[in-house]
Amino acid sequence: MLKDRLPTLQKLILQLQSVPYLATKNVYRVALHFLEKDEQSLDAFCKVLLEAKKNIRQCALCFNWHEGGQSCSICADGSRNKGIVCVVETWHDLLAMEKSGGYDGVYHVLGGSLCPLEGIGPEDLTIEQLITRVTSGAVQEIIFATNPTPEGEASASFIASKLKGMSIKISKLASGVPIGSTIEYMDRVTLYKALCGRRPF
Amino acid sequence: MLKDRLPTLQKLILQLQSVPYLATKNVYRVALHFLEKDEQSLDAFCKVLLEAKKNIRQCALCFNWHEGGQSCSICADGSRNKGIVCVVETWHDLLAMEKSGGYDGVYHVLGGSLCPLEGIGPEDLTIEQLITRVTSGAVQEIIFATNPTPEGEASASFIASKLKGMSIKISKLASGVPIGSTIEYMDRVTLYKALCGRRPF
Repeated sequence: MLKDRLPTLQKLILQLQSVPYLATKNVYRVALHFLEKDEQSLDAFCKVLLEAKKNIRQCALCFNWHEGGQSCSICADGSRNKGIVCVVETWHDLLAMEKSGGYDGVYHVLGGSLCPLEGIGPEDLTIEQLITRVTSGAVQEIIFATNPTPEGEASASFIASKLKGMSIKISKLASGVPIGSTIEYMDRVTLYKALCGRRPF
Repeated sequence: MLKDRLPTLQKLILQLQSVPYLATKNVYRVALHFLEKDEQSLDAFCKVLLEAKKNIRQCALCFNWHEGGQSCSICADGSRNKGIVCVVETWHDLLAMEKSGGYDGVYHVLGGSLCPLEGIGPEDLTIEQLITRVTSGAVQEIIFATNPTPEGEASASFIASKLKGMSIKISKLASGVPIGSTIEYMDRVTLYKALCGRRPF
């Protein structure tokens, strides 16, 4: 019915359906939200969208998002230790690490994790660029901050195997009981990891 | 941090935060989805959005969405009975009524329901236009298909009180047990309504 009577709306619906995290049942409501906006604010929305696409780029070195200049604010920051590289899966992970306030090195954003079932192989991530970065000689330590999931662990293992024989320190984030949680409800693998990784009090 | 380093992204985030049904925790992911799209598809997205805004209008008579022509496809359809007007709250309700396949009259979309707590009064809905439509003389019957909620019922009552004294039939959708449901799990008000409105077998 829509296709015949409202072809433009149908096109808008198709576009909105490609937006992730937008439930299918809400796509029509969002379309109406845009139709009910006045023309000026809709223009502003599109302008910001295109401006963001134009201005925001990935850092050529660490693949963090940035705007203006050649490299991202972290890579360009003179006070950061360029010898330590923290390897994260996504930009959100980078933001989370930054919020922890405990890190003064630089980053490398992989752009995801290895997942053969979904067809994501090493060539889909920035692993090659990381290896090049390490072989160029400026890196002394790699810290893996990939997710403690099978995919994240596999990505870290794969990269570690590629870095074998190079004279750099390789470490990964400690696994254990998260702060503020209760031991009672913790899963057994986490408790086992926390026990194995126990530290002097 | 974002504000200083990525001002354009911050602007995009602000725009996306105004989109309904998009969870706050997903706004950053949606922003990255747009950044990761190529420029062409982003242009296409904006083009469709602005085209929809330009082409799609509300019918001057029934406030249904339509594109092209002066009135919507239902009002313009010669085979529909213009004497019967089904009053619905939203366009989605109109679509649902159309899908039922049992209605050959026309519609009137109120644009919501009366809700004093949220500051929605009669002047925010298309009630005035409905009254004008009825007083113009072409309408013989009004069917209320507002939601069976306090707001929907109040809207129907309010409109009915305004139409008092005019020689038109006023009815509302039957309340009762929905098809495919189980009596056991039905709420008592629905069962009471179904009992009151029982019909000869």
